[in-house]
Amino acid sequence: MRRAILCTADAVEEAFYDAMQRGDLEAMMALWADDEDVLCVHPGSDRFVGLASVRESWARIFRYGHVEIRRTDVRSHTGAVLAVHNVVEQTLSPDPRSAAPGGMQVVECIATNVYVKQAGSWRMMMHHSALRQANPASNDRLH
Amino acid sequence: MRRAILCTADAVEEAFYDAMQRGDLEAMMALWADDEDVLCVHPGSDRFVGLASVRESWARIFRYGHVEIRRTDVRSHTGAVLAVHNVVEQTLSPDPRSAAPGGMQVVECIATNVYVKQAGSWRMMMHHSALRQANPASNDRLH
Repeated sequence: MRRAILCTADAVEEAFYDAMQRGDLEAMMALWADDEDVLCVHPGSDRFVGLASVRESWARIFRYGHVEIRRTDVRSHTGAVLAVHNVVEQTLSPDPRSAAPGGMQVVECIATNVYVKQAGSWRMMMHHSALRQANPASNDRLH
Repeated sequence: MRRAILCTADAVEEAFYDAMQRGDLEAMMALWADDEDVLCVHPGSDRFVGLASVRESWARIFRYGHVEIRRTDVRSHTGAVLAVHNVVEQTLSPDPRSAAPGGMQVVECIATNVYVKQAGSWRMMMHHSALRQANPASNDRLH
């Protein structure tokens, strides 16, 4: 597959959440840098390093279908060849407390996304997402 | 306090974990960029944005003393003015399952640290740490 030239880190990020939203593994993997150091941490998961491992982690997620997700409140820092976005991810997930079948809830995660510029196109180098928790006091001891 | 010139992102990172290890709030805050966009996420916490908020979050942690922590397995990407390190943090924490009083356990977190070069010195711009979990299968549905 010929890969699109993406002129900004923001364009990669938009395509990244779009690929999740559609559960499209090939579109997702086309966004990652051609680099064995690519790295992905999903909420509540270990660290996946390398293209094969990152691909397998997304394949496992997309086996259930797509992910209802949108990003908000982006904080970004951009250099010549490296860019970092910290975003709040809002995911629509089944609500275990719901009495009605199919009841859903919004779960928020915080993600740090890192992009690199390679051969004229921005690509994804790192995705680190973890559950957002509203109350820091509950976990003070763990730094 | 006159701030030290730190010639590499790695020097900032070393000083950062050293400040945690000593529970030294002034040394910790001297490492952060002079930028209202600085951002910090502790394991199991919300997102703290801005110097005052980041300072208060560390003050709350250091109220309990220092943090027994060391970093391992660093994966880094460095540009001219922006650098990103993803590290495994090993923290020594009280073990709730321990029968002996004072029993401790090693808890692992994964952290993404972002550094910027400002006025000739590298500084911390972002610290995003979250609990590492060994089994991704347990949380597949949450992406």
